[in-house]
Amino acid sequence: MNKGWFITVEGGEGAGKTTLIEGIASGLNKQGLRVVTTREPGGIPIAEQIRSIVLDQANTAMDARTEALLYAAARRQHLAEKVMPALAEGKMVICDRFVDSSLAYQGHARGLGLDEVWSINRFAIEGAMPDLTLLMDLSPEVGLARIHGASGREINRLDLEGLAFHELVREGYIKLLQREPERIVRIDAEQSAEKILNEALAIIIARFEGLFAGDVKQL
Amino acid sequence: MNKGWFITVEGGEGAGKTTLIEGIASGLNKQGLRVVTTREPGGIPIAEQIRSIVLDQANTAMDARTEALLYAAARRQHLAEKVMPALAEGKMVICDRFVDSSLAYQGHARGLGLDEVWSINRFAIEGAMPDLTLLMDLSPEVGLARIHGASGREINRLDLEGLAFHELVREGYIKLLQREPERIVRIDAEQSAEKILNEALAIIIARFEGLFAGDVKQL
Repeated sequence: MNKGWFITVEGGEGAGKTTLIEGIASGLNKQGLRVVTTREPGGIPIAEQIRSIVLDQANTAMDARTEALLYAAARRQHLAEKVMPALAEGKMVICDRFVDSSLAYQGHARGLGLDEVWSINRFAIEGAMPDLTLLMDLSPEVGLARIHGASGREINRLDLEGLAFHELVREGYIKLLQREPERIVRIDAEQSAEKILNEALAIIIARFEGLFAGDVKQL
Repeated sequence: MNKGWFITVEGGEGAGKTTLIEGIASGLNKQGLRVVTTREPGGIPIAEQIRSIVLDQANTAMDARTEALLYAAARRQHLAEKVMPALAEGKMVICDRFVDSSLAYQGHARGLGLDEVWSINRFAIEGAMPDLTLLMDLSPEVGLARIHGASGREINRLDLEGLAFHELVREGYIKLLQREPERIVRIDAEQSAEKILNEALAIIIARFEGLFAGDVKQL
């Protein structure tokens, strides 16, 4: 099986993940790579149905463990229907959020424990860990200010959580970075979009050197 | 905390679980016990929403691991909102299907593995294992014939599985019985409803003797 590379982009709200992923895809396409960009639930109907339950503001009675299990379920379906088939075709898949989001949000910030949340995600991903994870790190104040200033982006249940929660999310990501310094690479997300993109592309090219036939073209 | 007793009733389709549970509740009420009967999703809106995704016949693309995670999520919410509060009030809770259903159906019959499915259910139930589980055991041929003969009961996606699947479910339950002979008690579900009820009540009374103040009244 021709296994492609699996990259995930992580970070708090308003870190600029979407913009970065568009830039990476465009940059790698210029290098002749077949890149698939996606984010959970990724247009997979079953995963969309699951996410709509999690994000429904009416579901205030939702238990933290229920939430973690629902994220894992949506993750599994998206992985099985979209990510795994693309990787099997040898494509590079860049995913906006993946298992580390559950670990940082539910495991650390909600206090369920990293190992507890890992136990259900281990079941969900069945060994499909990212080859590389870019962690877009910035202070929650900056991230939330970006979100609340942005138009055309609906505020969901998670955005309504207080600043203290988002501080914990950041702390959770840093813990993960310390646990897996090989897989996870931190990017300072308070830099300009251009700087961030150049840094991300340099990381990817260094990591997956063999993918780039001959010289790397000017990005 | 005044901890009540937690009883689950398990078995394949058409085993007669609903009838048995009604009979047990009525019998125990006569003994002056406060009994709560329930079944997942138990009228808990979030759990109902989750179950409707699992049982939707349109969701043919559903991955077996997604299904198992969704059952665990619905289980968690029902447990947190209904079962745990009732047990905390010292009530006896009788639940139609619980964790053993996932182990037998997803773990054994769908081939995900008992330990794999247990790992996500361990997360979901957080130690709330049943004190007693009544396993209504009967051949799938008899069970399915009962279902397809019954009116007023909609056939769902799981009923449509072939006989071979239901044979595997039964085999899974028997494995669980062998693993946990203390907790799980087998009842021959091909007997008459009256015999089954008397056997079940005798098991419960023997198990929870201390609950019955003075003499057990005529059942």
